[in-house]
Parts: sequence; C-alpha cells; structure tokens
Amino acid sequence: MAASSRFDFSLYLVTDRRLAGEFSLTELVSKAVAGGVTVVQLREKDCSTREFLEMALAVKKILPAGIPLIINDRLDIALAAGADGIHLGQSDLPAEIARKYLGPEAIIGLSVENFDQLREAINLPVDYLAISPVFPTPTKTDTGPAWGIEGLRRARSFTEKPLVAIGGINGTNVVEVVKAGADGVAVVSAICAATDPVEAARRLRRLIESARKKQAVSAEEK
Amino acid sequence: MAASSRFDFSLYLVTDRRLAGEFSLTELVSKAVAGGVTVVQLREKDCSTREFLEMALAVKKILPAGIPLIINDRLDIALAAGADGIHLGQSDLPAEIARKYLGPEAIIGLSVENFDQLREAINLPVDYLAISPVFPTPTKTDTGPAWGIEGLRRARSFTEKPLVAIGGINGTNVVEVVKAGADGVAVVSAICAATDPVEAARRLRRLIESARKKQAVSAEEK
Repeated sequence: MAASSRFDFSLYLVTDRRLAGEFSLTELVSKAVAGGVTVVQLREKDCSTREFLEMALAVKKILPAGIPLIINDRLDIALAAGADGIHLGQSDLPAEIARKYLGPEAIIGLSVENFDQLREAINLPVDYLAISPVFPTPTKTDTGPAWGIEGLRRARSFTEKPLVAIGGINGTNVVEVVKAGADGVAVVSAICAATDPVEAARRLRRLIESARKKQAVSAEEK
Repeated sequence: MAASSRFDFSLYLVTDRRLAGEFSLTELVSKAVAGGVTVVQLREKDCSTREFLEMALAVKKILPAGIPLIINDRLDIALAAGADGIHLGQSDLPAEIARKYLGPEAIIGLSVENFDQLREAINLPVDYLAISPVFPTPTKTDTGPAWGIEGLRRARSFTEKPLVAIGGINGTNVVEVVKAGADGVAVVSAICAATDPVEAARRLRRLIESARKKQAVSAEEK
C-alpha cells in the first residue's frame, strides 16, 4: 500500500449503465454505496453532453458525503457538475490541464497501461494511478496487454502513489490484488452486472478488508 | 441583418474532416480562410479527447488574427485549446455554464431548431443563434424539420441577435438566405467537399457581399 493518501480508494465503482439491467443508474450507485463502495466513477459513453451532465448531477445528488464522484474523461462534465475529480486515460486531456481547471483539491486519476506510461506518470499532478488492466477484461477492449499480479507488484515497488487496480477483478482474485499492493480495486461488471449489487459490493469490500488485515499481520511478523 | 455585432459571421465554416478528401484538416481550413471564410468552427466527432484537442491546437496555429476558432459542443476542448468560443446544440451544455467558464469575451453560439427554442434562446448569454437547418441537409440528420426561407425571415423579425443560417446552403441559395436577413451563412459540404475549397469559399463570399449590397440599395430606395 502507498504511504498515505487523502482518499480511500478501497472499493472503486466504475459505472456502466448498459450493464445495470433492471436498475437505473442512480439505483445501481445507491446499492453499490450501501454495499461499501468508497469512490464512484461515472464512465458513460454514447450519450450527449447534456445527458452525461444530467447523469452526473443525479448521481452527485444521491452520493453521501465522503464518497467522491469522479468523471471519466470529460473535464467539461466534471466542471459543470461540480464533481470531485476526473479520471483520465492516455487518449484524454493532459493531467496538467485538468489540474489547472479543477484546482488543487480535485482528485485526478490516470490509467497507465504499461511500465513506460507508469514511469512518465510519476511526475504528473495526479492523485492515483489506475493499473489497467490487471487481468484481461471484456468491458474495455482498447487497452494493452494485462499487467498481471506480477506487473502490479512491480508497479507497487516502483511508486508510492496510490494504485487502483482495474480490469477483470472479482471475488475470486481480489485478495491477491490487494496482497500485491493495490490501494484500491476498481470494478465495473462485478457490481454493475450483479443481480444483487449491494451484496456484491459488500462481499468485495469484506474480502479487501480481510486481505489487508492479513497483510498487516504478516508485516508485523516479519 | 442584426443591428450590430462584435463579430463578422459572414461566411462561417463548420469542419468535417471526413469530407475533406485529399486535404488534411489544416489544409482545408487554410484554403477556406484564403477564400474568405470569417469564422471557423471545429466540429469533429468519433475521435478521442486528445485527438480533438490536437486538431484544435493545429487549426488555431494556422488561423490568422481576426478569424475566430469556435469549438463544437466541447467546453473542455475550448478551454484546453484556448479557442475563441463554443457552439452549443440543444443537447450540449447549458449556455450559462459555457459562459461561466469561457468568460465574457468568448463567442458563444446556440443552434435553434424551431421557434420555441428561438424564443427561449433570446435571454440566454449567447452571441449568435444558428437557424438550423434552413434547408434539409444530409450532413446532419438529427435535426428537426427545416426552417425554410420563410422561417428564417420570421426568426429575423423576432430578434436582433445575430443569426447564422446553416443547413443545405450553397451557391444556388445563399443569396436568398442573406436577403432573408441572415448575418452569416454556415457551410459544411459546400466548402469541405469542394474540389477547390479556396474557389468555393471565394464564390460564396462574393455572393454574400453582393446580396448585401443589393439589400442596402433596396433599403435606401424605400
């Protein structure tokens, strides 16, 4: 885990309303938060700017204090909705520009898809890095090869910046992701496509916390 | 024509790089400006935010002083590129938000597709209204029914705000559009798809100026 961070990235929901089935976007987010999600990133494509803004405002309205709302890619939506931050990919705006307009308090995250990008990102004004994808994932197909647990561990030993692992993470592999040093775990389908998003989030959160406890114990024993 | 305006909307190019054929986007814009275009709006879809920003910066670099660069829809790109303004559609951000972030000097335009939208737009902080579409057009298919020349004339008598006519305008109908009271004429394919964009722009500009002279003469004769 990184030395410290202003934010709790433990269980980081990335939305995809198309996976939400019977639930509306706000229902899905409410349920995920009830289950223990600590950050919500709105990643919505194929909609107009106005629709994206309306979704952002609706989600912001229902989020409890302390659960930040992060907007994927779009600085205009982050500004207009008064979101807590932005998540940038490698084809999005430069982090410096996002920082300039969002200010020093905003949360800015950046996806890194390989070690070169990680190395470049170290000096950027970002609050966390998303190691993307840790495992191959069907939700996002425009990424490079997966980092794997070993890649995540190397990234961890390279930087103290908070690391959020994303891509193919679910109940079967979340423990090893946390043990490899991720400060947070981002999921899309593991919560968005769950029939019971509250329970899905609760279970993931419990696994994350218990993996951390074991980590702490094993560190003390050393 | 509207009483006065800070800007010259006479011949307003809306880009579509997919129509530009053998020319790059910047070549197309250079040629259009050489031919007499007075405003350039970058309307580019199906590209990443970073690509859009890079196009905006490249176009800005080659535009002579006095030819404003307007960005379609995206406030983030307008801010990041230091563009002169933004053009908003009915599904884009509210004009007030664009004004808040771009400041009082920026050019903000809004498309209105019917009389209700025109009526609503009168009190918005926008510098011009785009009467869209004046004629049916294949370039943009998500619009309402065409205003027609009669609709443009009604719009003109309703407001003093600068009006830019858009949709299906070319050499065969530009004169009647100007006579109906448009302060400017926006074109996409009439320039972007022309084999000689310099000559296409020059011819349109000449037709606009001569229509205005005739209008002025006929106003004097009354």
